[in-house]
Amino acid sequence: MFEFTIEATSGAARTGTLTLPHGTVETPVFMPVGTQGTVRALSPGDLRAAGAELVLANTYHLHVRPGEQVVEKLGRLHRFMGWDRPLLTDSGGFQVFSLAGLRRVDEDGVEFQSHVDGSRRTLTPERATEIQWTLGADIAMAFDHVAPGGADEGTARDALERTLRWLERCAKRHRGLMEGRKVGTLEGGSVQPSNLPTFPQTLWPILQGGTHLKLRTEGLRRILELGSWTGLAIGGLSVGEPKPLMYEMLERLAPRLPAPLPRYLMGVGFPEDLVAAVERGVDLFDCVAPTRNGRNGSAFTPDGPVNIRNAEHREDARPLDEACDCETCTTFSRGYLRHLFVAEELLGLRLLSLHNVRYLIRLAAAMRAAIRRNAFGAWAEEWRRRYLQPRSA
Amino acid sequence: MFEFTIEATSGAARTGTLTLPHGTVETPVFMPVGTQGTVRALSPGDLRAAGAELVLANTYHLHVRPGEQVVEKLGRLHRFMGWDRPLLTDSGGFQVFSLAGLRRVDEDGVEFQSHVDGSRRTLTPERATEIQWTLGADIAMAFDHVAPGGADEGTARDALERTLRWLERCAKRHRGLMEGRKVGTLEGGSVQPSNLPTFPQTLWPILQGGTHLKLRTEGLRRILELGSWTGLAIGGLSVGEPKPLMYEMLERLAPRLPAPLPRYLMGVGFPEDLVAAVERGVDLFDCVAPTRNGRNGSAFTPDGPVNIRNAEHREDARPLDEACDCETCTTFSRGYLRHLFVAEELLGLRLLSLHNVRYLIRLAAAMRAAIRRNAFGAWAEEWRRRYLQPRSA
Repeated sequence: MFEFTIEATSGAARTGTLTLPHGTVETPVFMPVGTQGTVRALSPGDLRAAGAELVLANTYHLHVRPGEQVVEKLGRLHRFMGWDRPLLTDSGGFQVFSLAGLRRVDEDGVEFQSHVDGSRRTLTPERATEIQWTLGADIAMAFDHVAPGGADEGTARDALERTLRWLERCAKRHRGLMEGRKVGTLEGGSVQPSNLPTFPQTLWPILQGGTHLKLRTEGLRRILELGSWTGLAIGGLSVGEPKPLMYEMLERLAPRLPAPLPRYLMGVGFPEDLVAAVERGVDLFDCVAPTRNGRNGSAFTPDGPVNIRNAEHREDARPLDEACDCETCTTFSRGYLRHLFVAEELLGLRLLSLHNVRYLIRLAAAMRAAIRRNAFGAWAEEWRRRYLQPRSA
Repeated sequence: MFEFTIEATSGAARTGTLTLPHGTVETPVFMPVGTQGTVRALSPGDLRAAGAELVLANTYHLHVRPGEQVVEKLGRLHRFMGWDRPLLTDSGGFQVFSLAGLRRVDEDGVEFQSHVDGSRRTLTPERATEIQWTLGADIAMAFDHVAPGGADEGTARDALERTLRWLERCAKRHRGLMEGRKVGTLEGGSVQPSNLPTFPQTLWPILQGGTHLKLRTEGLRRILELGSWTGLAIGGLSVGEPKPLMYEMLERLAPRLPAPLPRYLMGVGFPEDLVAAVERGVDLFDCVAPTRNGRNGSAFTPDGPVNIRNAEHREDARPLDEACDCETCTTFSRGYLRHLFVAEELLGLRLLSLHNVRYLIRLAAAMRAAIRRNAFGAWAEEWRRRYLQPRSA
């Protein structure tokens, strides 16, 4: 369980298989985001059809509504959302620091205001771990102190130190829950059955440190000293810093990352970023871009993004993306999709979301194939030549 | 083509098969409504999964946006909306009299204002027939003058007379288009290929007359004198009159309707109305109720409507409808569906719309089975006992 096997490399790019309780995942992999226990506008059947292998859900959102106790009563997260393949939950750290009305941060944790009902709530490393345990995803994330994008070294240092102390507390609580589960399983009854996950869960640490390479490398070293992890996330990038700086950070981190650990770059999901990050050794990604952009009428295609609302598509009988095998592209014309958006029909939101998710999943598959041929660099160059070509639109 | 075979009767209720260019339809049948060329929140795949056999699209809406010429360029309505089974288009009469900013009605037709861009447009019997020909549905409807619900006999008489004159004009234009098609097909080229439908089309008359039985029976007699039709629609009911009055009108019309013609009761679709109308000899129905109510969180179940937003469903692990085989009921709990509505997730709108459409299609199938056993009356009584039972909610 929680094994990661690298099957081929091409430069820094790698392809492999991650084994999780609910199934195996081929990397590089893109995770669609199911913020509130649903990938917006898509059903589990759509996700299966799109080839999704791993889905992310947001602990903060599910804690606030409907509450992890409700999710547990409805059979935990897999059963709740009708998704029987691997799931990952974030820790809520990013959300409480960026979305919620933040009230107070101290060594214990974060007090914040619910965006749903304004109620005051507290997340600590222990609570975030317990909530994720209750949700029951395959992979849980450690609760981190996220410094604002562009934070100076002192601020970033403080956040890093606190994140490391919180990581110890998360890991301790997670071990306790796993032990409890074993005790409950073996001795029957010392833990309430409803507190037992059907499957084991792993906890991944998050590396912070902003755009300060020194902090990143120190953070990495200390994370690795703190335990024997099954994966590692890189947080605090793609939060507003210039893209070249993100790429540089990844490039300089890559040789220092232990090869056997899968690497998850949090919140990254535009096609050009996926390609650049895989080129720098990243294995997992999540982002709301395919669904959010899809709902705005923007579709990924091999020739770059297309805005389906544009008048040029009015009588266009061609599919959105001639190379794509998704339901949207094999069934409907650009003209029909434009009509759905102009007429504000719900089906349009779904069809473009579906295509964009499928696009990123096919992109990941194309990258895996290029890595297996040990030709990732040439493939990426060719891909960029087409995707980033200058266009009139 | 356009054959209707009655296979069994039970009292006034009948079950049969309607053969159309794009397939056969078992009656009684419920048609989901695809107003703008899409059944709101549902894909053609959803409709197939729900067992839909015949779908309705609105001529008025498609004429106004994107325009029938655009639909034609994108391969006509079937290709446009990705639905390869039978389609019916209404004539736009109901919409221009009830939805659009009405400007002027005279013997020639109706001038109205587009709800999309405020432009002035004119629909005449000929134009309505041509637009539907261009859209290319299996069944087109005659353009009718719809009198307001509760109109006095004089007003209803005027509307009826005009509807009969307009029916002659619709039928003449439709014959001309069909002849043109034959000429075009046989002699190759006298009609533009893009003006040729792939399939033949039939035109159905609409019986008006409000709640005045005398006008209804006279209208029926004169419609039957005007031609040899393949079906007959009953319009101007379910427009605000008391339900018992609608049922009485159907009951008194039924023995006068020619048995071999399929009977389409326009705009009717609540479960109790379907059962009552089938009991009075009706074969086809359409209504936005299943999708509109679904988007509002209201679901049909054998025990009556359920409002999924209610707090009682919060931790309810049961499906919406334990008897139902739709994706919604076989995959998700009431608790999850409630969460989707409370959290304003798009998937909720789709899942309840899908269930409600499937519910009405299963209801029609149950009615066909009861008719075949010649036990419709007892079945309907039992169905009503359960569906209309007094409830606390």
